[in-house]
Amino acid sequence: MSDKAKVTFLPGGRTVTVAVGESLLAAARQAGLHVNASCGGSGVCGKCRVIVEEGEARGGQSEKISAAEYRVGQRQACRTVVTGDLVVRIPLESGLGQGGLTTGVAGRNRARMHVYAIDDLRQNGLFLPPVEKFFLELPRATSADNRADAARVITALNHQYGERRMVVALPVLRKMPAALRADDFRVTVTLARPVRRGKNFIMDIQPGNWTHRNFGLAFDIGTTSVYGLLIDLNSGKVLARGGDYNAQLSYGEDVISRIIYAEKPRGLELMQELVVGTINKVLDGLLARAHPPEEEAKGAVQRAEIASLTLAANTTMTHLLLGLDPRQIRRAPYVPVSTFLPPLRAADLGINLPQHAVALPYPAISSYVGGDIVAGVMGSGMYRTAKLTLYIDIGTNAEIVIGNREWLVCAACSAGPAFEGGGITHGMRAAAGAISDFSLDPATLEPTLQTVGNRPPLGICGSGLLILIAALFEHGMIDHRGKFRRQSASPRLREGGSGWEYVLAWRRESGGEHDIVLNEVDIENFIRAKAAIYAGAKTLVEEVGLSMDDLEQVILAGAFGSYLDLDAAITVGLLPEIAAEKIIYVGNGALLGAWMSEMSNHIRRDVVAVVRRMTSFELSEVPAFQEQYTASQFLPHTDLNLFPDVRARLAGRAGSGL
Amino acid sequence: MSDKAKVTFLPGGRTVTVAVGESLLAAARQAGLHVNASCGGSGVCGKCRVIVEEGEARGGQSEKISAAEYRVGQRQACRTVVTGDLVVRIPLESGLGQGGLTTGVAGRNRARMHVYAIDDLRQNGLFLPPVEKFFLELPRATSADNRADAARVITALNHQYGERRMVVALPVLRKMPAALRADDFRVTVTLARPVRRGKNFIMDIQPGNWTHRNFGLAFDIGTTSVYGLLIDLNSGKVLARGGDYNAQLSYGEDVISRIIYAEKPRGLELMQELVVGTINKVLDGLLARAHPPEEEAKGAVQRAEIASLTLAANTTMTHLLLGLDPRQIRRAPYVPVSTFLPPLRAADLGINLPQHAVALPYPAISSYVGGDIVAGVMGSGMYRTAKLTLYIDIGTNAEIVIGNREWLVCAACSAGPAFEGGGITHGMRAAAGAISDFSLDPATLEPTLQTVGNRPPLGICGSGLLILIAALFEHGMIDHRGKFRRQSASPRLREGGSGWEYVLAWRRESGGEHDIVLNEVDIENFIRAKAAIYAGAKTLVEEVGLSMDDLEQVILAGAFGSYLDLDAAITVGLLPEIAAEKIIYVGNGALLGAWMSEMSNHIRRDVVAVVRRMTSFELSEVPAFQEQYTASQFLPHTDLNLFPDVRARLAGRAGSGL
Repeated sequence: MSDKAKVTFLPGGRTVTVAVGESLLAAARQAGLHVNASCGGSGVCGKCRVIVEEGEARGGQSEKISAAEYRVGQRQACRTVVTGDLVVRIPLESGLGQGGLTTGVAGRNRARMHVYAIDDLRQNGLFLPPVEKFFLELPRATSADNRADAARVITALNHQYGERRMVVALPVLRKMPAALRADDFRVTVTLARPVRRGKNFIMDIQPGNWTHRNFGLAFDIGTTSVYGLLIDLNSGKVLARGGDYNAQLSYGEDVISRIIYAEKPRGLELMQELVVGTINKVLDGLLARAHPPEEEAKGAVQRAEIASLTLAANTTMTHLLLGLDPRQIRRAPYVPVSTFLPPLRAADLGINLPQHAVALPYPAISSYVGGDIVAGVMGSGMYRTAKLTLYIDIGTNAEIVIGNREWLVCAACSAGPAFEGGGITHGMRAAAGAISDFSLDPATLEPTLQTVGNRPPLGICGSGLLILIAALFEHGMIDHRGKFRRQSASPRLREGGSGWEYVLAWRRESGGEHDIVLNEVDIENFIRAKAAIYAGAKTLVEEVGLSMDDLEQVILAGAFGSYLDLDAAITVGLLPEIAAEKIIYVGNGALLGAWMSEMSNHIRRDVVAVVRRMTSFELSEVPAFQEQYTASQFLPHTDLNLFPDVRARLAGRAGSGL
Repeated sequence: MSDKAKVTFLPGGRTVTVAVGESLLAAARQAGLHVNASCGGSGVCGKCRVIVEEGEARGGQSEKISAAEYRVGQRQACRTVVTGDLVVRIPLESGLGQGGLTTGVAGRNRARMHVYAIDDLRQNGLFLPPVEKFFLELPRATSADNRADAARVITALNHQYGERRMVVALPVLRKMPAALRADDFRVTVTLARPVRRGKNFIMDIQPGNWTHRNFGLAFDIGTTSVYGLLIDLNSGKVLARGGDYNAQLSYGEDVISRIIYAEKPRGLELMQELVVGTINKVLDGLLARAHPPEEEAKGAVQRAEIASLTLAANTTMTHLLLGLDPRQIRRAPYVPVSTFLPPLRAADLGINLPQHAVALPYPAISSYVGGDIVAGVMGSGMYRTAKLTLYIDIGTNAEIVIGNREWLVCAACSAGPAFEGGGITHGMRAAAGAISDFSLDPATLEPTLQTVGNRPPLGICGSGLLILIAALFEHGMIDHRGKFRRQSASPRLREGGSGWEYVLAWRRESGGEHDIVLNEVDIENFIRAKAAIYAGAKTLVEEVGLSMDDLEQVILAGAFGSYLDLDAAITVGLLPEIAAEKIIYVGNGALLGAWMSEMSNHIRRDVVAVVRRMTSFELSEVPAFQEQYTASQFLPHTDLNLFPDVRARLAGRAGSGL
């Protein structure tokens, strides 16, 4: 018997040769294929289910897989050892569907999307790209004026544009004599402004006039996904947008599993390479698609024309991207290496950009309130508004910020991954086949499902879960404690392995291998998640001596936010009862903030002061929080005075939970 | 016949295999041996004379080599083509003697050596190394104080030492969590101060207390030689000093030949590598010899402990070291790429130092008044004195600065290389065998010679030439026009191929292959050189409305300066007639300035203002200069009122030139 074996993965048929004894999860990683492994491959989560269709493998049986399932080849990939040649199918719910990043559901009461207008920036005097190009027509060198080339350039920048205090990078000095003389002392210099005090930095020089071509990048480096924008820095317009799953995903779905992996020998290096690989892939896509808008801008955007990049990421992702040791982030007292980060050479990180391109990572507040949240606060304009605002970003966890231009407080809520389908029996991300909308026939109590991509249902995504629970609650199928009313007359209600459950889709209707259900444990997890967010917000607002009624504005951010049904969110007590027109959706707050930073050096400067005055609360250390949290673990809340409209509506309905 | 041939060089016997058709000069370079080639190998200077002892070579005959010399194997190496295996001797006067860098002559009226005292810097509040180490005992991270590691370090630097406005380098952030926890939050940080405004830069972090070990380097990168100092930045003391010939020497002796070479394909790259190679060699020697002085400083200085380097060099050498295109330096209107240079990563230049080590090159004034002169002005304290001072640095060319703490003017004097033995029939550098002192028996007019290393005479070095001409002039052998008095009764006076000449050593007494002579062309070259310097100084001083009589101090710098006989220098009219106690010798001004910069960030800051207020004169553009120059081409000068003491002394002597 050879000590190597061939493993072919379906669908797609990609084949890899691996050492006998490797796990199927490792083989899939080697093949570049994604298998869900929320727990990082430790065997706990049971999500890495695959089907061995041909050949033999050892192990893979566990409490997560029934005997019947095992007989038809279902295995946990992380616990299955390759013993010979295999053909393995990765089921849809374990792999990554395509298009899940952009697919949505229409027709519900969504938050108004905040569309950013560059004119706002201009009107507020904020439009000032941190990297700008200047065209100079220099006097020729003569014996009466034989200043050094660099002095000639610097003086002209001062006289023609009022720019002062320059330092010239060595590579620019190396190019300068030829650049000056190639087009008769007519040159374009690329100037990077200091974030705060400091010198302007001449980072590039080109013969001729190239001021019409000045491009920048904004990236949101998420735990799950990486999104990028290619921006025309003259107009502020987005020329291309794109995204991809963070290649680190194969090593765990949450930041904790990534940190654990990074602690292994060369683990940090691998995590760094993976996320940079994803950035480069997204970047390639942006360059392939970008079309400069101006008439005089001929040809596609060249990589060499990009001189600026703003990165927004949570604290762990920032650490992994920069190669900073993240181990203290997951250990009490949860200390990051640094919250402020210096501007970096993008090329030093492995990002495929010219040597002079500068990358500026957004500063963070703490280990669990990261640069992505700060970017959202900056990009949404929250830091400049007079209105008392609640900012919520619901991702793998949830972060909340409360305040206005005078003051800001923030906290991370340990909501758990329920809103991303984590901890939910048939939870999944908003990929094809995810149940994203749900309604009940009031007469028959039979459900109507809508799925992402209109595919046979595979599981429940976060926005679907919210609607589902709100509907079941409104129709009196579950009570305010989140328990199924046993007396509900539905054949779909039954007692399962994890207590009472509701069958959303029978196996024959589903795209998977089993019935798709929602059980009481799932509801408990959901309630804990929504309670953590609401209690967090209420605790923060009361810590500063105000009440939830004082809120004048709610800003929703995060991929979840775009699909958040506002009525459902208020019905279950996730959001406070506030008029829908006061709720604004900003989409990807991190990406928005990174984009704004690419267009406004004022925002880059302001962020330092904003971060300094942003008070971070560790909710577990605030005595009032536990009480708030307990009180919030009801639908919508133990104190119905907080939700008068919900109370009134439900009270008027037969069979309501009240 | 093979297309390869072996060439063995004597003395030493180094053998290289070269392609048939290569020149002997190229073969010697390949062997790593130095053959003088002032003209860069163009066949003009005739200094690359070698002797083919065995085998045959083609060519090498020229007007520089007589038929008799050719018959005994003498060839010009640059014009000789290898046709088969050869044994070639490099004569002493063509090669580089050892020890020439430090050998001197004692017993004459020398300038007082200015010995730098660190206490001066301390007393003047100037002692502030640009790189300093700070020991921090940090509070441990707790849940009540879970600031980021970087914030903890920055706050402590502020609270314990008052240091503010920090930026932390990415590599330091990468080391920080481990460094903090290796010795219970006791760390040493290395901080680089900004040259002027800007942020302090945390460039290194180590667990424990290492403040007692903080080292820096000062380098003078000369056209001929590279000198280095290894400095204890806590005490300011020099722990080791060393030097070597600039490896670029094989490609020409002056900056012009180096520039010409740098213009060839890959020529700049080669020039850069060669000088960095020399720096690294000198650095290795410094590290091998350095012994930390303090008791607690155990063990030799490690390369990794060096974080700071100041470089002083003329403008061309700075360009070649930094890889800046120097071609405009030798073309009207003589424009350097830049006079101000940013702090650089030493490792980026190829200097064998840790990644974080910062190199700061001294700024220049113009293409021909370089950072070496600025360093001399800073290091000698000239920029801080109230006295009207003349600063002269005599190297391959001469640069002069006049002024005080209020104002400074400067100029490069096209003196030519006479003071380094260039343009003199038997001129040579102050290497072993160079005639460095000379006296005449008043009765017999027979000479007594002294040579460097007491070796048989090989030629005349600059300081010897000065003494020789002053002595011949004082004894009336040459007149004030520099012509031999034909009536002088010496058998050593004869008419040679270049007019009248004086035989210093007959062939049988010499270490070479011929009589060693001084002819009228040599004297003319010398007079032009000394006239250029004196006329330059006089022009400058008069341009600012003063006269030579107003000078209160003369500072001499340069290797030549140390051996300069003051009486002889005044006798021939090189220096103005000034009391010997007002003449100060500072040795290698460039190295002194680099050393001072390593100890005083104030000096680094001041240099920017000094350079800005230093007015550079292009003497060839000043109408008065030509007149001054013509008037100075006599011994000592046409206007004897400028040299009353010399006039009086000579007038009292029989046979004087007056």
